Amino acid sequence: MSAVEIARAAKSAFNKSQIISASERINALSEIKNQLESMKDAVLAANADDLRAALRIPVKAAREEVDAGRMSESLLKRLDLGRGDKWDSMLQGISDVADLPDPNGKVTYASELDDGLELYRVSCPIGVLLVIFEARPEVVVNIAALAIKSGNAAILKGGKESNGTTKLLARAIAAGLSKTSLPETYIQTIQTRAEVSSLLKLDEYIDLVIPRGSNSLVRDIQNNTKIPVMGHADGLCHVYLDETADLQKAIRVVVDSKTDYPSACNSTETLIVHESLVTTVWPEVAKALINSKVKLLCDPTTLSSISALPDVDSYAQLARGSDYDTEHLDLVLSVISVPSLQTAMQFINTHSSHHTDSIVSESELSISAFCRGIDSAGTFVNASTRFADGFRYGFGTEVGISTGKIHARGPVGLEGLVVYKYMLRSKADGGHIVGNFGAGKKQYKHAPINAKQVPF
Amino acid sequence: MSAVEIARAAKSAFNKSQIISASERINALSEIKNQLESMKDAVLAANADDLRAALRIPVKAAREEVDAGRMSESLLKRLDLGRGDKWDSMLQGISDVADLPDPNGKVTYASELDDGLELYRVSCPIGVLLVIFEARPEVVVNIAALAIKSGNAAILKGGKESNGTTKLLARAIAAGLSKTSLPETYIQTIQTRAEVSSLLKLDEYIDLVIPRGSNSLVRDIQNNTKIPVMGHADGLCHVYLDETADLQKAIRVVVDSKTDYPSACNSTETLIVHESLVTTVWPEVAKALINSKVKLLCDPTTLSSISALPDVDSYAQLARGSDYDTEHLDLVLSVISVPSLQTAMQFINTHSSHHTDSIVSESELSISAFCRGIDSAGTFVNASTRFADGFRYGFGTEVGISTGKIHARGPVGLEGLVVYKYMLRSKADGGHIVGNFGAGKKQYKHAPINAKQVPF
Repeated sequence: MSAVEIARAAKSAFNKSQIISASERINALSEIKNQLESMKDAVLAANADDLRAALRIPVKAAREEVDAGRMSESLLKRLDLGRGDKWDSMLQGISDVADLPDPNGKVTYASELDDGLELYRVSCPIGVLLVIFEARPEVVVNIAALAIKSGNAAILKGGKESNGTTKLLARAIAAGLSKTSLPETYIQTIQTRAEVSSLLKLDEYIDLVIPRGSNSLVRDIQNNTKIPVMGHADGLCHVYLDETADLQKAIRVVVDSKTDYPSACNSTETLIVHESLVTTVWPEVAKALINSKVKLLCDPTTLSSISALPDVDSYAQLARGSDYDTEHLDLVLSVISVPSLQTAMQFINTHSSHHTDSIVSESELSISAFCRGIDSAGTFVNASTRFADGFRYGFGTEVGISTGKIHARGPVGLEGLVVYKYMLRSKADGGHIVGNFGAGKKQYKHAPINAKQVPF
Repeated sequence: MSAVEIARAAKSAFNKSQIISASERINALSEIKNQLESMKDAVLAANADDLRAALRIPVKAAREEVDAGRMSESLLKRLDLGRGDKWDSMLQGISDVADLPDPNGKVTYASELDDGLELYRVSCPIGVLLVIFEARPEVVVNIAALAIKSGNAAILKGGKESNGTTKLLARAIAAGLSKTSLPETYIQTIQTRAEVSSLLKLDEYIDLVIPRGSNSLVRDIQNNTKIPVMGHADGLCHVYLDETADLQKAIRVVVDSKTDYPSACNSTETLIVHESLVTTVWPEVAKALINSKVKLLCDPTTLSSISALPDVDSYAQLARGSDYDTEHLDLVLSVISVPSLQTAMQFINTHSSHHTDSIVSESELSISAFCRGIDSAGTFVNASTRFADGFRYGFGTEVGISTGKIHARGPVGLEGLVVYKYMLRSKADGGHIVGNFGAGKKQYKHAPINAKQVPF
């Protein structure tokens, strides 16, 4: 199918799906799970082919290459669907999503505008989603499940290295859908960047683009479409050690934020130290970081105050200006000292990617100002930035972590994939017309209605 | 100031404002109102100059031109701030906005992730808004009030015909702000399209663009920025007369939807008639429309069935295909017959601008399917499409009516100008780290917290 045909089919599938019940969606998830179970061997065989093709060498040898540091361990990890419990987790994820509360049909505002004229604001799906992500085959199934549960049609594009696996997963999803009243084209997959480029022009059919990946991927897409983009880009997270920081909290939060999983977007890249701590708390934190093999890129003040630490020459050096705008994604931490909370906040608002930033503090005043003054999706207190995650927040699962500032921000679960519509119903004889209201005529009543669901 | 300086000043003002209390915002609105009152004569003089300049002829003569049908009555109406009670309404609007509930600081999700680890999702401002609108001077004040109340910095650009008035209004707003702790650059105005073009490139500083106006304005902006756009574009609204439509409701809803204010975006442009009504209800509706001087552009079926009506030759003619994609904004209505509700819904989902569509029906099944199956911001039952309006919905006021499908949809009040952030606070000794959770370690608790406000 051409891109236009794919987009049209998606929109048509979405429109048809709108009057299909929520229970049929849950049924579809169960059918898809069954299909995947019966196709397990074929999918994993295709995945092994993908692995071999991507590496152009046998898998075992590839792993040796990784060990020798000559190849991306993360690509291997992401692509390999047979690794560990990934397959089982993928299937379990479908059931988990099926069991989540339905995000649609919830009344978030209801008002009687006049006797017998009732307004309901009701959550509903967005429409057709175009989701672009890395070469992680299980994400095809995750996002398909989220889209189906939230009532959105979706067109999915994974990294090209996973194309063979994706094709088989897509076949299983379509086979599952075909056993329900949802259209088979409700979830479609595409394979090429050219298709993405064509689809980005089709704002008539596609309602939201969700790119997960690098800043450059997100910016490139934003530059080439008028469709709204919910960007899932880099995380340049900060920890700020306030004047009142507790030593143990400082050490634990900074070390965990940096070392728990350095390549994750919610890892911390820059530590900001109040200058009153430079010769007290900071050297202890630095010692713990060096023990965890973290390389420190320091400003002159924070560098000179740790000059006596063991191993400092191997682990600490003067930072360049650009280090404070760099997502290291590794055991590397930029460090800077500031004279005040206000300066720290200005620094974070300038350099942060507005993902997640944390303060270590015992001062209620500082905590309150930081949580309000930092313009990020997550403002944390005495807690690791690594907590920024849909599962940890209790959403069950997530599409990703939005660094945008409209619609959905931070970890995006099912609620981030719905919008709302206004339903207005007149029960009066002759219906309701605007011409009856105004100066010298009827006035609006605006009486709140207590309703959780639309009564019709 | 250059566009970059304006944008930077706006972002800096926004960041500073984040830790200023809500009461100071209300204070600012009151100071702005005082300044406007004291500058009334100067503002109205500037407005009279704008009117003369725009028309290049004296105002009185211009009104005669309008009467002769040679000039846009709507431009005159919009530009003239001295007309009727417009000035007083503008000032009253500031007080009304000040009195609305604060949309910020509301907790919409709260969960204890672990003993002493509390997560709060809290509504907060978006950041810097760039709002582009028509030559209606009072909108400068309306939007400034909405931005201040919702905690957003704003850069405003009105139609060029109102530039003189806008300059003075901006001076009054800045003077009002200067009497508070909010920065004077919290609300800025710009005068030229070149400034808009430059600002659209500055996604680092500007968080949301809100264009109000034609489809072509909105599309042009969407094509030239990577900043999210909340489009307020045309309304191509429909009324569908279902098989079970009540005659009186049909007549009243259709006539009001078309004639109450034909140039408004929530006026109806197309009437869809179930074929079973073509010789019964439809001719009565057509008679009422012709009595209201509405020109009817009909398909062959609906045209032939009204051939016996008086004056039909002057008011009804065969429609062209493009009439069903045209926002007439005048006493003109496209009419088409369909064999079923399903066809009507397909037709609306294809031709509607997803603004507001209404069904006239006595069937619960049809009503339920229509409200769910129509992918529009408003799905109405036995009520005029003209009810789609922030004031009528009870929002107090509105920025406009969004035809987009993410973030805010339909009439956009204060709630549409906020987003949320996640605040996470550990109260445990040593703070909270992710490394303590996982297989064989701590599990997440996810216990709901009952809170309407953040307790810190």
